[in-house]
Amino acid sequence: MDKLHVIKVGGAVVENPDALESLLDAFVSVKGAKVLVHGGGREATRIAGKLGIETIMVNGRRVTDASMLDVVTMVYAGKVNKNIVAGLLKRNVKAVGLSGADAACMTSLKRAAGEVDYGFVGDIEHVDGEALSIFIDNGMVPVMIPITCDENGQLLNTNADSVAGAVAVELAKRYDVTLVSCFEKAGVLSDPDDDSSVIPSIDRASFRKLVENGTVGGGMLPKLENAFAALDGGVSEVLITCSDNLGKEGCGTSVRL
Amino acid sequence: MDKLHVIKVGGAVVENPDALESLLDAFVSVKGAKVLVHGGGREATRIAGKLGIETIMVNGRRVTDASMLDVVTMVYAGKVNKNIVAGLLKRNVKAVGLSGADAACMTSLKRAAGEVDYGFVGDIEHVDGEALSIFIDNGMVPVMIPITCDENGQLLNTNADSVAGAVAVELAKRYDVTLVSCFEKAGVLSDPDDDSSVIPSIDRASFRKLVENGTVGGGMLPKLENAFAALDGGVSEVLITCSDNLGKEGCGTSVRL
Repeated sequence: MDKLHVIKVGGAVVENPDALESLLDAFVSVKGAKVLVHGGGREATRIAGKLGIETIMVNGRRVTDASMLDVVTMVYAGKVNKNIVAGLLKRNVKAVGLSGADAACMTSLKRAAGEVDYGFVGDIEHVDGEALSIFIDNGMVPVMIPITCDENGQLLNTNADSVAGAVAVELAKRYDVTLVSCFEKAGVLSDPDDDSSVIPSIDRASFRKLVENGTVGGGMLPKLENAFAALDGGVSEVLITCSDNLGKEGCGTSVRL
Repeated sequence: MDKLHVIKVGGAVVENPDALESLLDAFVSVKGAKVLVHGGGREATRIAGKLGIETIMVNGRRVTDASMLDVVTMVYAGKVNKNIVAGLLKRNVKAVGLSGADAACMTSLKRAAGEVDYGFVGDIEHVDGEALSIFIDNGMVPVMIPITCDENGQLLNTNADSVAGAVAVELAKRYDVTLVSCFEKAGVLSDPDDDSSVIPSIDRASFRKLVENGTVGGGMLPKLENAFAALDGGVSEVLITCSDNLGKEGCGTSVRL
């Protein structure tokens, strides 16, 4: 199977013009077929504020009413996505910006209101690997936003990590997939106060030990649990690192079963 | 060659939710391969106003500085385009939203500042028919916004009629293309005060007569000149009508050489 990287980057690196240029330079240095998944939450919060719309976050997730859905759709699909796609064109990479509604590539179900009503928020139900492979096999790089769509055409705000994981698992049926989860650190650290203490590789056995001895905790725990879920779903490798390390050999934390 | 319709709709029908539903019902009733080109100028003006950005129009064209470029990109590629794409998904049509940067399908040159400096405004240089045909031949409907991109990755605001014309001419090398130019009237009228006076067909000879006897003038003149330019470029037919007539036989004004 051909190698393919599904690379998820956070909002901060795509919202700042200089950081975006560095990201795109690093991104195009990754060899072979690629998919980029990006957010844009901080910019959405900024634009919402300018439009007089209050941003409400609960447990780190955005409450998305109809007007906030308009804002995230405008910011993610419009401003952020088109600047990334244009920046890749400048680097001679043919990219295509995709929400879940485009080519019906990611359909989701609106999350039922529980203790919190998140509004127009969706959980992914289906990724259409065949549709995505049409783009990929024709030399295009899908640049995906975390907005999906239910079968009634309702756009739904969706978690970007969930999008990247679901896309990686579906594409693992067709490609040898590495999922790259970019965050602000160079990798999983054995000492949170020492940025050079990156753990080069983690498997299921060493993961258990790291949890038991307290090295891994907090926000790192769900990140690694998601990584193992992707590996269980057929992804070959999950690489946890910062976007500066994209395309560099031997950087970051490589997670394998 | 397979039949293909390139359908250009104005901003008003895509910005109002009810009008958009009617448009999409009519659009999907058009048989065979289709491309939709849409604007969203009024909504861009509204959102710009809310963001405290003044809209300046000169000769009917939007002056587009950096902040206005962000707004039109957000509104066209984000809010309007994704709602159209999602509305087509609801109707079991796989659509894919495209700016000129996506798949590098439409590149343009920034217009040099003359008497008026329109800012980030581009004139189309190249449409990539091969890229568009990948989508079309895989059963997708390109839904195109009038934002193009130069080779340096600079997004450029572009006239929607020019986009529709250039796409139709390029695709005429591969398909039997009808360009449908939707506006508020049912067709070219012989009596501007009588909406039922639609001229069913116009060719070059009758066009000359209509200009000479004053039946065609004002805004209709450039519309028909553009139609003949598209026909000269290889398009089989230009249909001038309102969006309500999409998919209906024998409606509107059919322009042929």
